[in-house]
Amino acid sequence: MRILTINPNTNISFNKALEKTAEKYALSTTTVKVISPDSGPQSIEGSYDEALSVTATVKTFLEHQTDYDGFIIACYSDHLSTYAIREITEKPVIGIAKASVMVACTLGDRFSIVTTNDRWKPLLREAVEKYGVRSRCASVRTTGMSVAALKEESEEVVREKIEREALAAIEKDGAEVICLGCAGMTGFDKELEKKTGVPVLDGFVCALKLIELYHQYGITHSKRRRYSAPLGKKLKGFSEIFLSAYKK
Amino acid sequence: MRILTINPNTNISFNKALEKTAEKYALSTTTVKVISPDSGPQSIEGSYDEALSVTATVKTFLEHQTDYDGFIIACYSDHLSTYAIREITEKPVIGIAKASVMVACTLGDRFSIVTTNDRWKPLLREAVEKYGVRSRCASVRTTGMSVAALKEESEEVVREKIEREALAAIEKDGAEVICLGCAGMTGFDKELEKKTGVPVLDGFVCALKLIELYHQYGITHSKRRRYSAPLGKKLKGFSEIFLSAYKK
Amino acid sequence: MRILTINPNTNISFNKALEKTAEKYALSTTTVKVISPDSGPQSIEGSYDEALSVTATVKTFLEHQTDYDGFIIACYSDHLSTYAIREITEKPVIGIAKASVMVACTLGDRFSIVTTNDRWKPLLREAVEKYGVRSRCASVRTTGMSVAALKEESEEVVREKIEREALAAIEKDGAEVICLGCAGMTGFDKELEKKTGVPVLDGFVCALKLIELYHQYGITHSKRRRYSAPLGKKLKGFSEIFLSAYKK
Amino acid sequence: MRILTINPNTNISFNKALEKTAEKYALSTTTVKVISPDSGPQSIEGSYDEALSVTATVKTFLEHQTDYDGFIIACYSDHLSTYAIREITEKPVIGIAKASVMVACTLGDRFSIVTTNDRWKPLLREAVEKYGVRSRCASVRTTGMSVAALKEESEEVVREKIEREALAAIEKDGAEVICLGCAGMTGFDKELEKKTGVPVLDGFVCALKLIELYHQYGITHSKRRRYSAPLGKKLKGFSEIFLSAYKK
Amino acid sequence: MRILTINPNTNISFNKALEKTAEKYALSTTTVKVISPDSGPQSIEGSYDEALSVTATVKTFLEHQTDYDGFIIACYSDHLSTYAIREITEKPVIGIAKASVMVACTLGDRFSIVTTNDRWKPLLREAVEKYGVRSRCASVRTTGMSVAALKEESEEVVREKIEREALAAIEKDGAEVICLGCAGMTGFDKELEKKTGVPVLDGFVCALKLIELYHQYGITHSKRRRYSAPLGKKLKGFSEIFLSAYKK
Amino acid sequence: MRILTINPNTNISFNKALEKTAEKYALSTTTVKVISPDSGPQSIEGSYDEALSVTATVKTFLEHQTDYDGFIIACYSDHLSTYAIREITEKPVIGIAKASVMVACTLGDRFSIVTTNDRWKPLLREAVEKYGVRSRCASVRTTGMSVAALKEESEEVVREKIEREALAAIEKDGAEVICLGCAGMTGFDKELEKKTGVPVLDGFVCALKLIELYHQYGITHSKRRRYSAPLGKKLKGFSEIFLSAYKK
Repeated sequence: MRILTINPNTNISFNKALEKTAEKYALSTTTVKVISPDSGPQSIEGSYDEALSVTATVKTFLEHQTDYDGFIIACYSDHLSTYAIREITEKPVIGIAKASVMVACTLGDRFSIVTTNDRWKPLLREAVEKYGVRSRCASVRTTGMSVAALKEESEEVVREKIEREALAAIEKDGAEVICLGCAGMTGFDKELEKKTGVPVLDGFVCALKLIELYHQYGITHSKRRRYSAPLGKKLKGFSEIFLSAYKK
Repeated sequence: MRILTINPNTNISFNKALEKTAEKYALSTTTVKVISPDSGPQSIEGSYDEALSVTATVKTFLEHQTDYDGFIIACYSDHLSTYAIREITEKPVIGIAKASVMVACTLGDRFSIVTTNDRWKPLLREAVEKYGVRSRCASVRTTGMSVAALKEESEEVVREKIEREALAAIEKDGAEVICLGCAGMTGFDKELEKKTGVPVLDGFVCALKLIELYHQYGITHSKRRRYSAPLGKKLKGFSEIFLSAYKK
Repeated sequence: MRILTINPNTNISFNKALEKTAEKYALSTTTVKVISPDSGPQSIEGSYDEALSVTATVKTFLEHQTDYDGFIIACYSDHLSTYAIREITEKPVIGIAKASVMVACTLGDRFSIVTTNDRWKPLLREAVEKYGVRSRCASVRTTGMSVAALKEESEEVVREKIEREALAAIEKDGAEVICLGCAGMTGFDKELEKKTGVPVLDGFVCALKLIELYHQYGITHSKRRRYSAPLGKKLKGFSEIFLSAYKK
Repeated sequence: MRILTINPNTNISFNKALEKTAEKYALSTTTVKVISPDSGPQSIEGSYDEALSVTATVKTFLEHQTDYDGFIIACYSDHLSTYAIREITEKPVIGIAKASVMVACTLGDRFSIVTTNDRWKPLLREAVEKYGVRSRCASVRTTGMSVAALKEESEEVVREKIEREALAAIEKDGAEVICLGCAGMTGFDKELEKKTGVPVLDGFVCALKLIELYHQYGITHSKRRRYSAPLGKKLKGFSEIFLSAYKK
Repeated sequence: MRILTINPNTNISFNKALEKTAEKYALSTTTVKVISPDSGPQSIEGSYDEALSVTATVKTFLEHQTDYDGFIIACYSDHLSTYAIREITEKPVIGIAKASVMVACTLGDRFSIVTTNDRWKPLLREAVEKYGVRSRCASVRTTGMSVAALKEESEEVVREKIEREALAAIEKDGAEVICLGCAGMTGFDKELEKKTGVPVLDGFVCALKLIELYHQYGITHSKRRRYSAPLGKKLKGFSEIFLSAYKK
Repeated sequence: MRILTINPNTNISFNKALEKTAEKYALSTTTVKVISPDSGPQSIEGSYDEALSVTATVKTFLEHQTDYDGFIIACYSDHLSTYAIREITEKPVIGIAKASVMVACTLGDRFSIVTTNDRWKPLLREAVEKYGVRSRCASVRTTGMSVAALKEESEEVVREKIEREALAAIEKDGAEVICLGCAGMTGFDKELEKKTGVPVLDGFVCALKLIELYHQYGITHSKRRRYSAPLGKKLKGFSEIFLSAYKK
């Protein structure tokens, strides 16, 4: 199958790392492409960033949808584009936060998310609650580093900070599984797994394997109610491609 | 005080009705302006519509923010623009769904929302859960009419359908308060109140009076964590006005 | 409008402070009177105190109800008199705890309550749960001071203790909004707001502004089920005024 | 042991029925006395009735406490006097609603409460939530009869209405246990048990047996925090007996 | 009445202690026998141990059921045998964990469980959630000692460790009642009660007194749905006694 | 990879159907074997049946574990053997109920389970609650047919009954995804999907694909706390193979 991964921010330096991860874990029959919209913020660290990345992410989907069988939104948030795209396609779509959280729930009693800055505490608590598994979330812990810092700091420093928070989540908060709460942490999972002794999940891998799972089983998200096709209507100031997504 | 109401869809026919409602309930010292973005869908009936209305709504805010003291997002959904705007301003901002739901919780044991089509059932359950008051929501009931139909059908038919669902919510689901779940239902509250014998809330009035409440008390949303200013970053393909909202 | 505030304890020294607060925040068209019953405990610090203050609070309401348009029960607890009075009037009534908690939920992700002694921890958790917003309460923190001490200690000491707990609620418990958990803390909000950098709510102001909101919108609590008028019945040992409140 | 049951209303005709029930189920070493305050409403059907019965119920306790080893508040509500009395005594005290609900939780998956009029639906949902077992309550069903009607209607009619609701709770709501939601229904349990095929609980019997359980095990409610002794304070307009309950 | 207590592990040294406790608290008309299956693990410290003890526990019940009027499963877990046995008998059956937790809920705001090793944290959280009272559980605390160590260490050391955790539960976690989370801790309750100042519950005593309560009231678990008799079916490799339990 | 599926009942006629399903959906590099224990009940329809199938299921695992890389417990219940086996292996293990429920949560707002007889209503509600996703379960619906009837009735009748309940779950209860609540319903998914228009999940396929997902990602359940290896101990009356599973 052909999977398109849309990284909703415009920092394409992460995309290479995601493709490298995909090569490692995708089935031999799966091809995975990672792209970013050509406009939008360089990282997504809250609702303003999200707001500025939604339209371009949806547009990226619309432009490429016919060439792919499944889609991943590679932002560790409850990104609105995931919902919007599910309404306008019958092909499977998933975000990396939800993917990692739902897989985590199958592996242990409770999970914690380790991510970047403090705003993600309320944001990811909200997300986890929306996914219906709040009682299984032991904590959201943050390193205090911005997404940018993940690339600017030496990788060693970044990994140490993540490890410290992961261990605290396990020892103090009761986590039995760790979710890496940022697409930029791709590739950190296996080493951290060795250091902490618990499963460590890269949300991108979880999303990739779930999309493959859907494809092989021949299932996709329900088109009843929540993700039914949008009702046709007038649309001002948008190109034809956006209009075409409305149900006739 | 000066309140700007942004109706995130491009159907300006509703805006007049909202201004009429505002005239009735605003303090004499309050002026209320209702405007729509110049691009976007004609109604918002799901996540795709929401996605296409977010940037323009935020832009409308950015262009007018200096002239107003408080802001209302007049869409009965958990519209992402509310959160984005809260991050980039210290002036009070609220959406009409949250406003009506929180006021409803102070007036009776449980409330129901009566709205248009079926997709709103999961969407508003999600919203109510996010606002933390799911156990106080007796039901979300729908008339089956699209937002467009609210204007196309005779008002008598529309009111009858709303009344039927409101009465069912009260008798069968245990609601003691009714929230009108669409900005387009503004002005229907008082007649329905007489027919049902319970408080009926127009979310726009609730939002307007809460913004006045915040202003008079000198409070606004917390700028700690959830609504802290967005971290500065590169932004591709957006005009200067969007970039200026980032914290230096 | 004319608002009657009933402070259910007999310590009238707080009433002056409340009236001073009211002068600061009430609309110019609003008059606010604060009175206490002529019998009962000097402070309300638990269920026994509450039990001894209920009848006198209801009686105070009955004696003055015709002269006022709305009522505040100025005790930071889930005081039974609020519910009893809502059953026997169609005019709006609210308690200061519920008012502050519901306003807090509109301003940030989660709130904490800072109050006096340890019994309030379970008591206010119970209250917050009853208001349906338990998941939005980060913590109930206590200074360890009795209500009496609020007046006996130097105000500086009191303010310092409150500030310490408020900061701990913000940093350790994740609160983004602070509710002052005692009517006796009226007037402490704005200074604490400056010191903590988050909204600090005086429940009395919240109640006052909500009553004004109800009045201006022409709404009141639902008279269906929960607050329907009490069924008529024999009443032994109570004066005529209590009997008159029963539905014929 | 000696148990005092306080029926907080002034309808002493129920007290005989309760004593008859007590004779049937109490241990031979237990004596059970049922009394009512000499003032207050003839039945308790909401918060106003409750407010007018609290002080007299506490007074009844204070006057008789030394002669008894345990106390039952025989009103199927979350009566404030139970909490007030727990603060001022180290002897066990329980209300009949909580007793029946907690025993019900040990006997089946979910329970329903069958009671009198519609106000009890929100009131008992609130109570069940406060007892922490809301997810185990299948429904609160009402016969529509006032408490008075329980005595005025022929017993046959009353029993039939209760049976109809109990069966509906079992078949439609999924209840596996029925709680009789009114002290006035004492004695109806065993016949209804035969007709429905599920356990039917008389809250008074549950309370009586729990008080005996506490006594035999030598336990009572915790005096830490929630039920710690009330702090000493001035008390206006109350007799010495009320003042004596304060901790020195 | 005659109560059979089945200790599902094969360490009969605990059974004497349980019988001693029973002598102290059972009614004079009650006889209590404590036995263990003749096969299975020496202690139950997780799901594997539980799995190996279930069949033998059920068999022990089947062999002795006619001689007894009520049954206790003396393992502080949510032992599957309790559910299996409830399906095949109409006589009352209860486990000691559920008994202590439900009694604890009637005595204070929240309870904590103090038990042996760390696996019990998720296991007992799961159990408490299944009993429907998760919001009333302040914490599950562990001493780090295996069940074996309870007998091997000097009793003084064991008691000290339990006391330390109990005090932390009260001071830090907000517990007002302590449940001893292991059958092997029988007899430790009263001394710990003196040291902590809060009720301390031995689950075995709670179970014993609840079984007596059921017996005296003439009630048992509901035979509707959850505990209805198992449907008859073929059974390979089990003796006749197991087959006889199926409904014809 | 090599997957062993253990059907915990002794009705091997289902095993063929499961292998046929596996052939359809497993990767070409995966082999799936389905076996049953040689003792135990012919179907599992409650806790008594479960109790009689646990030891033999664990034994089957122990005898075959070295030949396989992952394990499925093919009983649509929260079967104790899944937990027991997770403690004694580091290879991935999952039950079909949890697998289908967690996949369902990724595909729509809420799911319903359609299963056989009424006891499964409380049993599966319990399970769903334990998996942490109770708020996402719209309903558990039952056809009223025993597991045996699934084979005895004409397949047409069975499918019709399932379809009727699935449609009711979608229309009345708000389900957007259907889980087939019995291993014996394998193969019914795709036809029902066509008839209902929503995703229909065969728990066995979900489990199979999740095990493959774990294997390809190189993850397994957490061995910290909940599934840590059982502490070594004496074990009476069990063969050496059971003893060998204890940690040294």
